[in-house]
Amino acid sequence: MTTYATSTICALATAPGIGAIAIIRLSGEEAINICNQVFKGKDLTAVESHTVHFGTIKDGDKILDEVLVSVFKGKKSFTGENSVEISTHGSPYIQQQVIQLLIQHGAQSAGPGEFTLRAFLNGKLDLSQAEAVADVIAANSETSHELAMKQMRGGFSNEIQKLREELIHFASLIELELDFGEEDVEFADRKDLKELVTRLNSALTKLISSFDYGNVIKSGVPVAIIGEPNVGKSTLLNALLNEDRAIVSAIAGTTRDVIEDEMIIKGISFRFIDTAGIRETADEIESLGIEKTFEKLAQASIVLLLVDASTITREALEADIEKIEAKIEDKNKRLIVVANKVDNTRDQEGILRTFKGIKNVIYTSAKKKENIKALEERLFDFVQSGALNNDVVVTNARHFEALTRANASLIKVLEGLDVNITGDFLAMDIRQALHFLGEITGEITTDDLLDNIFSKFCIGK
Amino acid sequence: MTTYATSTICALATAPGIGAIAIIRLSGEEAINICNQVFKGKDLTAVESHTVHFGTIKDGDKILDEVLVSVFKGKKSFTGENSVEISTHGSPYIQQQVIQLLIQHGAQSAGPGEFTLRAFLNGKLDLSQAEAVADVIAANSETSHELAMKQMRGGFSNEIQKLREELIHFASLIELELDFGEEDVEFADRKDLKELVTRLNSALTKLISSFDYGNVIKSGVPVAIIGEPNVGKSTLLNALLNEDRAIVSAIAGTTRDVIEDEMIIKGISFRFIDTAGIRETADEIESLGIEKTFEKLAQASIVLLLVDASTITREALEADIEKIEAKIEDKNKRLIVVANKVDNTRDQEGILRTFKGIKNVIYTSAKKKENIKALEERLFDFVQSGALNNDVVVTNARHFEALTRANASLIKVLEGLDVNITGDFLAMDIRQALHFLGEITGEITTDDLLDNIFSKFCIGK
Repeated sequence: MTTYATSTICALATAPGIGAIAIIRLSGEEAINICNQVFKGKDLTAVESHTVHFGTIKDGDKILDEVLVSVFKGKKSFTGENSVEISTHGSPYIQQQVIQLLIQHGAQSAGPGEFTLRAFLNGKLDLSQAEAVADVIAANSETSHELAMKQMRGGFSNEIQKLREELIHFASLIELELDFGEEDVEFADRKDLKELVTRLNSALTKLISSFDYGNVIKSGVPVAIIGEPNVGKSTLLNALLNEDRAIVSAIAGTTRDVIEDEMIIKGISFRFIDTAGIRETADEIESLGIEKTFEKLAQASIVLLLVDASTITREALEADIEKIEAKIEDKNKRLIVVANKVDNTRDQEGILRTFKGIKNVIYTSAKKKENIKALEERLFDFVQSGALNNDVVVTNARHFEALTRANASLIKVLEGLDVNITGDFLAMDIRQALHFLGEITGEITTDDLLDNIFSKFCIGK
Repeated sequence: MTTYATSTICALATAPGIGAIAIIRLSGEEAINICNQVFKGKDLTAVESHTVHFGTIKDGDKILDEVLVSVFKGKKSFTGENSVEISTHGSPYIQQQVIQLLIQHGAQSAGPGEFTLRAFLNGKLDLSQAEAVADVIAANSETSHELAMKQMRGGFSNEIQKLREELIHFASLIELELDFGEEDVEFADRKDLKELVTRLNSALTKLISSFDYGNVIKSGVPVAIIGEPNVGKSTLLNALLNEDRAIVSAIAGTTRDVIEDEMIIKGISFRFIDTAGIRETADEIESLGIEKTFEKLAQASIVLLLVDASTITREALEADIEKIEAKIEDKNKRLIVVANKVDNTRDQEGILRTFKGIKNVIYTSAKKKENIKALEERLFDFVQSGALNNDVVVTNARHFEALTRANASLIKVLEGLDVNITGDFLAMDIRQALHFLGEITGEITTDDLLDNIFSKFCIGK
């Protein structure tokens, strides 16, 4: 990535394949000049920024396509440098030919995320905003889209920036003390500092704890369904799907016997992980299945225990719950008991007796699609209750890590203040905290970090 | 299609799926107004045509995306009516949401090809140019792309228009004669008319005969490979592929045992149809295979007879050729004999003796990749020789049919002139010819015809 400062890059920016239109994007000092060499129409070097021009792309005498060219000049473009978007007919053949032609005239193939990287390097976006661009594109549910948009528009950056600036003020006072060396002056009031760091610590803790929620929103809430054969697992999944006419995709799991269904309930994406049952068995192969079930449990945020309400005994029910709870010490993991097939017997009182006192039960008939809505509400509530009414939610593992490290440094500052350590130790910890906060927005950065972040983008963005 | 005159349509114009950017297109009287209702930024109703504006798309208070909006006004747009292109982030979720929002504000989902249909109805393109838009998008080789571009840019239309206008001049003179009824005047000189129609007839014949070439260029040249097992069919196909680093795709054929390989040789797309051999056999199943081979032969433009030059006898060779030639009466179908495995024996003189006097032989070693280039040249030449050095090539079956019918009417005119039939019969045939020529460019059209043409387009074009 060392050549980005001077080179002009190009790439297909729209989805690959056949469409009515495709966009080929150019960015860099020479973007307008390079396009102008192959474009016949107006002289693009003489047009205003943000204007569109009809003409042809020509390879020598051969017309490759009739196109619309949009010109964006310097600071006003997305990347903050001269940019051109060529709107061609959406044929893969033409896309290929036009990109080759641009490369022949001096452009370079863009790497993944290189346009957004340039926007960051040119100060158009901070790092956390740039990262959100990829999240915006990948978001497939209302809530994940909303979080990504908020981050891209700078909500999260502003929060971090605010915290950082408050700390910088104190840091500079302490650094000033150090300059005076032996003179033993205190420019920074230790009581004020303690108050500030306590406040920052509480703000960071809140952000850090929002990550659990943010992470499941971004990648979908994993829900493990545990149930013996014939309790109605697939009927329940179908009933959930029906209810919402939601988007479904079947993802082949890591093992052949685990299929994940993804569906969106009230704007939140849930991934349902089907598992084997958990009852004791003498069969060796089935025992392996149970082991696997417990593994899947560990990955899930919510566990649905699905039982046949018309046949299960109180003993079996309690044994199942006990076994599951033993595996989900994590208090953020919730267990919902779905008492299915309530339509299958006339002994409704018997059912109520069996489930009396059991927490979090929902009575359903998946077959008759009864009470499915209530189950959905419960799933949704579990996720929403994790939201903690935060305005700003952390969705990115890199940010989570940086926040956690920054907070650890702040805690060291607090501990230091308690034992009256000297300014130079305080300064060191404060500098650490500032460093980690700066990594989030990109004030502090390295080439490796940038490579790592932008290599996950798609090409053309 | 009855509502297109007044409605405003919208659709995703870029390929479906995830990309950096997606374009959503609006066209119609209200296009700019509808977009303006959901766009926060500049007032789009007050901006110049062909300008680009940054802003957000908002659903009430909720920001759906940050976008670039390009505004095209009235006659200056592709469709010839107010148009807007919204450049969003390339997320399927956002695409869906924005299109739904536009529909809520009064836009309608566009049907296949409806943007191009409007361009035609608004006089921005004639019908044959509009049809070429779909061909430009579908073209996957240099030659098919070139033909489609030429047609889209009006090369073919101009040719037809020219011929039609010459005929219209005479038609009007003859119609004038008819107005004078009984008076027996001749405004249209019969000798001049005969000369003109003869010239038109020859021009149409040339166009009609270019269709064979145009059709194979557009859909790929079908080449049947006939060869007994072990003569090196797959080695030959691989050698051809290697030579050109061409694009290959395996298309499952209509039967499980026929696989088509597509590759581009010198800008022309060839589809290789693998067949069973054609030798006599007692085996019932194999006999069926031979039947199928002859069927494939009927579909191919070129037949490659592949034989093992190191073992085949003169008798077997002659028998094979005779059998194939009996099946390919069509004189446009060419037979190339590929004498493969010439490296497999030292008896080079024996080989030359076997093949002496056989037409169109190419000696190859597919295994050693020897002489593959010569085979490619031969394939290319066969196609190019069909081009007849026409500037304008007919690639569309509808045009071919209309030209053929127009020409039949012209021939009737010539026949009529020879026997001195009266003006009203001449006028009828000339009107017919004009009608069919007019169908090509769309001067004469019906709703059914338009539906039929544009329903084959993709949505968004």
